[in-house]
Order: sequence, then structure tokens, then C-alpha cells
Amino acid sequence: MNEVKLFSPATVANVSCGFDVLGFCLDAIGDEMIIRKTVEKGIKITKIEGYDLPFEVEKNVAGVSALALYHDANPDCGFEIEIYKHIKPGSGVGSSAASAAGSVYGMNLLLGSPYSPLELTAFAMKGEALASQCEHADNIAPTLFGGFTLVKSLDPLEVLQIPTPADLFAVVIHPQIEIKTADSRKILPESISLKNAITQWSNVGSLIHGLHTNDYELISRSLNDVVVEPFRSQLIPGFERIKRTALESGALGTGISGSGPSVFNLCKSEATAHKIEQAIRVDYKKQEIPFEIYVSKINLDGIKQIN
Amino acid sequence: MNEVKLFSPATVANVSCGFDVLGFCLDAIGDEMIIRKTVEKGIKITKIEGYDLPFEVEKNVAGVSALALYHDANPDCGFEIEIYKHIKPGSGVGSSAASAAGSVYGMNLLLGSPYSPLELTAFAMKGEALASQCEHADNIAPTLFGGFTLVKSLDPLEVLQIPTPADLFAVVIHPQIEIKTADSRKILPESISLKNAITQWSNVGSLIHGLHTNDYELISRSLNDVVVEPFRSQLIPGFERIKRTALESGALGTGISGSGPSVFNLCKSEATAHKIEQAIRVDYKKQEIPFEIYVSKINLDGIKQIN
Repeated sequence: MNEVKLFSPATVANVSCGFDVLGFCLDAIGDEMIIRKTVEKGIKITKIEGYDLPFEVEKNVAGVSALALYHDANPDCGFEIEIYKHIKPGSGVGSSAASAAGSVYGMNLLLGSPYSPLELTAFAMKGEALASQCEHADNIAPTLFGGFTLVKSLDPLEVLQIPTPADLFAVVIHPQIEIKTADSRKILPESISLKNAITQWSNVGSLIHGLHTNDYELISRSLNDVVVEPFRSQLIPGFERIKRTALESGALGTGISGSGPSVFNLCKSEATAHKIEQAIRVDYKKQEIPFEIYVSKINLDGIKQIN
Repeated sequence: MNEVKLFSPATVANVSCGFDVLGFCLDAIGDEMIIRKTVEKGIKITKIEGYDLPFEVEKNVAGVSALALYHDANPDCGFEIEIYKHIKPGSGVGSSAASAAGSVYGMNLLLGSPYSPLELTAFAMKGEALASQCEHADNIAPTLFGGFTLVKSLDPLEVLQIPTPADLFAVVIHPQIEIKTADSRKILPESISLKNAITQWSNVGSLIHGLHTNDYELISRSLNDVVVEPFRSQLIPGFERIKRTALESGALGTGISGSGPSVFNLCKSEATAHKIEQAIRVDYKKQEIPFEIYVSKINLDGIKQIN
């Protein structure tokens, strides 16, 4: 095998109460990538379609993560990377994570899979750091592991796979404005009230319990963010409108996807997801901002080979 | 049935990372109470043994919780309460919660069980509030539900029962000093860093996951408290000594029980629990403070009738 074609999915990080630690994997949107072994040593990015991103390996998240693995593995070959970008950079659904995870996942397959998903996560974090100026794994983990993940700690890196109830669906709306992760980090306070912190960790605990017990109503009651959403939602025009419409249409919860501007909604059943999608589609037009919206099941497999 | 005799167990609240929301129930120590129907209406406390506590109903936590249920039920009878107190007030293992839960649990049995455990929790919280100047349920919930509990919210009151791995044991040491809950609340900061809050909710999430998956090592890695312990441990002479000794003897984790001064240790297997108990027993003598120490399995049933 000298070449693999991959689907590297979009992901939702934070998931309301789980700022910086929780995430889940989407199915309806993702990048395609081709990773190819070359006789010539080193890493090359030979094609980028979809969005205007740097071909220079050191300036491209897929390139930086690839280099991290490459230097560790020190193989007798090189790799070419082709990126067919469908996830818009800066949309808040793990665009950089998909790129960063894709290159290392593909290279690992071509090398005979010497690395575990956790080790791949560590390599991909090097690429992610280029995009967001700090190493984090809350998008990379669900990209590589699938389903819901909890990044328990970064040092040492530890990722937990949390069970996903079978009927859980996501509706993601992406208002076509850009929010940079670094900017949306700046808006956050350095300290929070102990009272709000307690509310937040109570919700994280009950969300994990709800996911384990398939308790959709508890999941709904746990999808609250009293810490980050009050600040970041100000950067997203019509956030409260989306939330109200989604909840009226049967959503279990609505929150900011990663650092925004995308907004995710979780619900039970595909039919409800389409109902929510339609309602938001009609209502958000009043906001007069172009947007994309899609329905996705939770992707239990994560990134995968498609050739 | 005109009389019930009860065992109302001690409990450990907070459980390191889960300040104000998590708790678990002990088996080795608890109060005994007798609740008796009387023809004469009203609530009377007719006997208190073990510790010097007020007989005046309005000044006794068991009395206050009893009154809350009594006014709601408005029965054609009255109740007498006898309290055989084994849990020292102010020891940090839910002494007031045991009293507050006991009276309402017994009255409910004698009335034909019209109230759910959740409703009894709400009544018992009225008594608990007398002891700690604020309503909380993190000791009452495990007393009434057994096992591990997460108090998801107080308004509306919601208690989650979290699974308990079968081999989990607790070792609790009670240095014979008194710390009042109200005093140990005063020592806490009103705000905490976002960074520490994230660490804490990551640990809460992973502890719940570890309890669901019987992952003792994960439970161990989750039993960390970066928010409250750094402050409250200063009030407990030799806390770091206990922690070091317990961890060296195989404890999964060590933390402050409730607001202290008791310190709990969790471990896998009864044999390890006795090893930890012995090691602390020898080592804590150097502290020159009298103490009691006991080994307990996790009590899955909670409060129960014993006649």
C-alpha cells in the first residue's frame, strides 16, 4: 500500500459544559485527504483544494503534525499530502484538527500502524498548536477516536471514550463570519466564580452519566454552559435566536461549537434533527447573514480510510 | 407498625474533585434512631444518647427535618424521635445529615411511604440547613440513596445515583479536632482560576466515567482536588502525612471528607483498606492528636430499617 485516501471528519469541541475537555465527532462534513509514500524523503504538500492554505509544510497544520510523526518514526521514505478541504477554516468545527489528524493517520497506516490513536493525537496536537497558539486536543481526540471524548489531561495526554446513545443527532449551523480561536480565547475571563464552577462540573458529571445511561432528558438538562457561553455568544449574531428556535423544535441542547461561530444542537432522532434544521433555516434568514446548516449523526468511527 | 428502628449511615461529601455535588455512603459507622408514632400530635425528641444535642425540636436537625415532613403530610398522629448518636457532630462525615435523614425516613415508613427518596432529601435539607447555615444535599443524598450520588442541582432538586465498583473500600480517619462547616466555607475563595476549574471538571467527568466502567486506575487519577483542598487541608493537622502514607500503602486517592477534619481514602479491596488503616494508625501517632480510624465498604443501600 503506497497511498491512502481518507475522510477526516469535522468535530464539535466543548459541548456546552465541557469547555476544553469534551468533544464529539460529526459525520456529515469532513475533509478528504490523500497521503502517498514517496521514495524521496521528507514531507511535501502537493495539492490543496477548497480553501487557500499554505503549501509550506512548516506553515500548514497538516504539515506540522506530519513532521512531528516523521521525525519520530524516521522512516526510509517520504510522504506527499493532498488536501481536499471541505471544512472552512475558522468555522469552529475542528477544521485544523481534521487536517492535523489526517496527515498523521494516513502516514501511520502507510507505515503499518506503529502508533496508537493516543500517540497520533499527540502528533496532531503539534499541528493544532500552529492554528490556535496553544496545544489542545478537544477536536483532535474526537476526530481520531470517534464518538464522544473527554480529554482528561494533556500532560500526560489521556483521552477517554465516552459511550454515545444510538439516537443522538447533531444539527450544526455555520454563520458565514470568522472568529479566530485565539480571539475567542481572549474574551474569556481568567477567573470565574466558585458558584459557577460548581454548576459547570455538576453538569459535566451529569452529562457523562447521561451518555452512559442513554438518558436523553438528563443529557438535555446537562447541556448548559454558565462559564463560557455568556461571553462567546456575544460574538455570534443571532445565537439566542438559534437556541430558542432549536429548543422549541425539540433540541436537547444548543451551544457554541468550539470557539464558534458554528452553533451545534443535539437532539434525539434524525426526524427531530431535520425539524430543527428546517426551523433554524427559516428563522435565521431574518438575521441576514449567509449560513450553512447540516444534520449529522454522531460519527462513532472517527477518521477513516475510504479507498 | 408503630415504631421503626433505623441505621442512618455516615457519608463522605465532595469526594475530592466533586465539591458540593458528589458524595458516597459509608457502612461502618452510623447513628441508630427509633421513630415512634404517637396519639398526641406534633414532634418530640424523647431521647438523645452519645452526644450532647438539643432536645428542642426547632434547634435539632432531626427535629427541623421532621417538622418539614410533618407540616407537609399533616397526619392524624404525632411522632417521637430517639437518637443514638454514634457519628460525632462536626467530624465531617455527615453527622447532621444522618440525623436529618433518619427522622424523615422513619416517619415516611410509618406513614406507609408516601414520599420518594428525593422528597425525603428535600425535607432533610431543611434540617441540614440548621447545621451549616445553607441548604445542601451532598451528604443527605448518599445517606438516603446509598452508593455514590451526584446532586445535579438544588433547584429543582435532582439526585443521580452513580454506579459503585464492587471492590471499592474506604478508610476514614477522624482526627479529634472540630471544624465547623460554616468556618471551613469561609476559608474558600469566591472565585477560582478558569484553568483550575477546567482541571476540576475534567476530573469530575473522568471520575463518573471511571465509576461507570469499574476503572480503578482512572478513579485514582481523577481523585484530585485543585480547588478546595489547597485551602481546607491547612485546617487539618497532618493531612499531607495521611495522604502520603495512604498512597504509599495502595490508596487510589485521599481527600478531605466534607469540610473535614475527617480524611477519606478510597482503595480497591478490603485487604488493601486494612493495610492503609494500619499504616495510618502507626504514622498518625507522630502527629500527637487523638484520632479514630475505620474501614468501610461503600454502603449501597444507604439508610435502612434494622428491627
